[in-house]
Amino acid sequence: MLDEQPRGFRTCAKNVGIKDTTLDFTVIASEVPASAAAMFTQNRFCGAAIHVGREHVANKQLQAFVINSKNANVATGEQGLANIREVVRLVAEELAIAPDNILPSSTGVIGRQLPMPQIRQGIRGIAQEMRSGQLERAARAIMTTDTHPKMRSCRIGDAVLVGIAKGVGMIEPNMATMLSYFMTDAQIEPELLHQYLQEAVNISFNMVSVDTDTSTSDTVAIMANGLAGHVDHEAFRQALQRMAVELAKELARDGEGATKLIEVTVADAESFVQAKRVAKSVVNSPLVKTAIFGEDPNWGRIAMAIGKCEEQTAIVPEKVSIAFGDVPVYLGQPLRDEDLAHVKTYLSNAEICIHISLGLGNASARVWGCDLTDEYVAINGKYTT
Amino acid sequence: MLDEQPRGFRTCAKNVGIKDTTLDFTVIASEVPASAAAMFTQNRFCGAAIHVGREHVANKQLQAFVINSKNANVATGEQGLANIREVVRLVAEELAIAPDNILPSSTGVIGRQLPMPQIRQGIRGIAQEMRSGQLERAARAIMTTDTHPKMRSCRIGDAVLVGIAKGVGMIEPNMATMLSYFMTDAQIEPELLHQYLQEAVNISFNMVSVDTDTSTSDTVAIMANGLAGHVDHEAFRQALQRMAVELAKELARDGEGATKLIEVTVADAESFVQAKRVAKSVVNSPLVKTAIFGEDPNWGRIAMAIGKCEEQTAIVPEKVSIAFGDVPVYLGQPLRDEDLAHVKTYLSNAEICIHISLGLGNASARVWGCDLTDEYVAINGKYTT
Repeated sequence: MLDEQPRGFRTCAKNVGIKDTTLDFTVIASEVPASAAAMFTQNRFCGAAIHVGREHVANKQLQAFVINSKNANVATGEQGLANIREVVRLVAEELAIAPDNILPSSTGVIGRQLPMPQIRQGIRGIAQEMRSGQLERAARAIMTTDTHPKMRSCRIGDAVLVGIAKGVGMIEPNMATMLSYFMTDAQIEPELLHQYLQEAVNISFNMVSVDTDTSTSDTVAIMANGLAGHVDHEAFRQALQRMAVELAKELARDGEGATKLIEVTVADAESFVQAKRVAKSVVNSPLVKTAIFGEDPNWGRIAMAIGKCEEQTAIVPEKVSIAFGDVPVYLGQPLRDEDLAHVKTYLSNAEICIHISLGLGNASARVWGCDLTDEYVAINGKYTT
Repeated sequence: MLDEQPRGFRTCAKNVGIKDTTLDFTVIASEVPASAAAMFTQNRFCGAAIHVGREHVANKQLQAFVINSKNANVATGEQGLANIREVVRLVAEELAIAPDNILPSSTGVIGRQLPMPQIRQGIRGIAQEMRSGQLERAARAIMTTDTHPKMRSCRIGDAVLVGIAKGVGMIEPNMATMLSYFMTDAQIEPELLHQYLQEAVNISFNMVSVDTDTSTSDTVAIMANGLAGHVDHEAFRQALQRMAVELAKELARDGEGATKLIEVTVADAESFVQAKRVAKSVVNSPLVKTAIFGEDPNWGRIAMAIGKCEEQTAIVPEKVSIAFGDVPVYLGQPLRDEDLAHVKTYLSNAEICIHISLGLGNASARVWGCDLTDEYVAINGKYTT
């Protein structure tokens, strides 16, 4: 699925036996130290790897991502922190790079210590297992309940940008995202790289919600190793934004148990904050999500979800309009029941777009989510047992 | 189920054909004008009846509740408002009472006009259908997806207090509640009655969430007609609070598709606001709710839900403790996996109590919710079709 890969990145994705025999340990390393930026979860119960990652990206330089799945190493106290520091040190020794140029991530169950004997054994000799052109395999190795790997690549001048992402449950990132990594051989100064990453995350991962739950392990990070030289900055910025939005939508489309991608656009709001609050309220409403799963044209629930955003939000029902795709259902007052037949047809699509105008101003926001199904309940009723 | 009923209240609960042939229209009237208080939804898309109810309770006097189910009369514009005013006027004429002493409520589907010909026909001659001692029938007539009526009665001195409530979906009341009515023959001055109602609602209905969705029709109202004379105020206040908490818990226990009642207590918080925010975050987390449905001792999700309350909430993971019932699972760090066997046993109960200490202060809060099941998805996937 990746047409091209950036120069100077080598990857190893293997099983070290953290939980079962599937891929659970990934290293992505640049040949040379790279400009780097990262954003992390705002969850106070954040993972041990998040603490270490924050320290290591502070100087805006990284050389490797080290990611384990099947165990989030969260709520594990001092022991958990010591364990992830040891993982970083062991990988650094094997690859002969500086430990503080490594950004670690862990994803999986919360509240269990990492199985260190298995991990130590798995890291031994890993330098000999690093290969070029293996980023697809990395996208696969970081999955948990994802049904397929999420990745994108694009060319900007002589450089290539690749992004990979995972995460389909415990997804309502806040100022950060689930695990997502971008690798490029473009040369971008660290300050600009950080700015571009923030801009991209704010319109992509921060606009996605599968289930309103903010993961303890959210991380998005980028390395730009410069091996392809200088590229047009605006082209790079736009490519990164486009790629981040595409990966974010893929997370929502693959939401646990989901059968439909839901896109909610709120226009004519007083502010971006208001537009985003209303859009998130609609895309997160369990009643809206179940109605869309059932292909039930119950648009009144959208009105309910708009109206419940009462804090600082002066919604005026008479100024609001609501449409499914191109089919209006409410224009300050309800349309005739006969018009709902078109909505029923529209709801059979796999992508449902809800357009809302608040009639209050010029700001807008777009968010993505998915329907709520019996399969979500089944997946999450028996996760650890 | 009601041992006693207050003096001077007559009831008619009948079918007028709003949607099907089940009970859909209820009038509860006092023989004399009563002290009254009410609280309503904060949802901006509130129902037409809410507008009229706010006007009519402003002078702290009411003589009747008029409640229809099967149609919420929400997002119905000017026509919806005219319709409910006509309903109130017709009932007032039949009962020979003042229209502005009637508090109307509507609950059901959003976005459809009331079927006025059927309702006009149903109201005609209703004075002859009013009976004493029929509050149980009223509790039944106001149900929508409720599986059983919710009601309580108690004696305070010579007076009796009866409360009825409905609502098991679109339930996260905000400063108000779903439909709930209290009738008493105690004599209580209107200002005190309002204060007592507010106090009771704040620790009961405002602490319940079935699905985070705030209904457009939430109303709680009380009439005290004074026919039993003066009662001990403190006894009345406590009885009202106890009854409100019991009815609120019944709503959560009967939550759409629910198999378990969840009670979350957050102690040792900096403030009530912080304690309530954390407790609501836990009781509303889809991942916590599905794990409890599956009887999966996945307490890490509780840590996640505590940690995601990052706004203004300085959670310190090392100070937090979490227990299921009497069984601790996290005391600043995880306990051994062997201890989780007790949790698994505990989770087979029908009432699950989660105790959280934040270790930060002396405030606490208690909230109620329910598990998230495939049945919730089934009920809400096909509500209008």
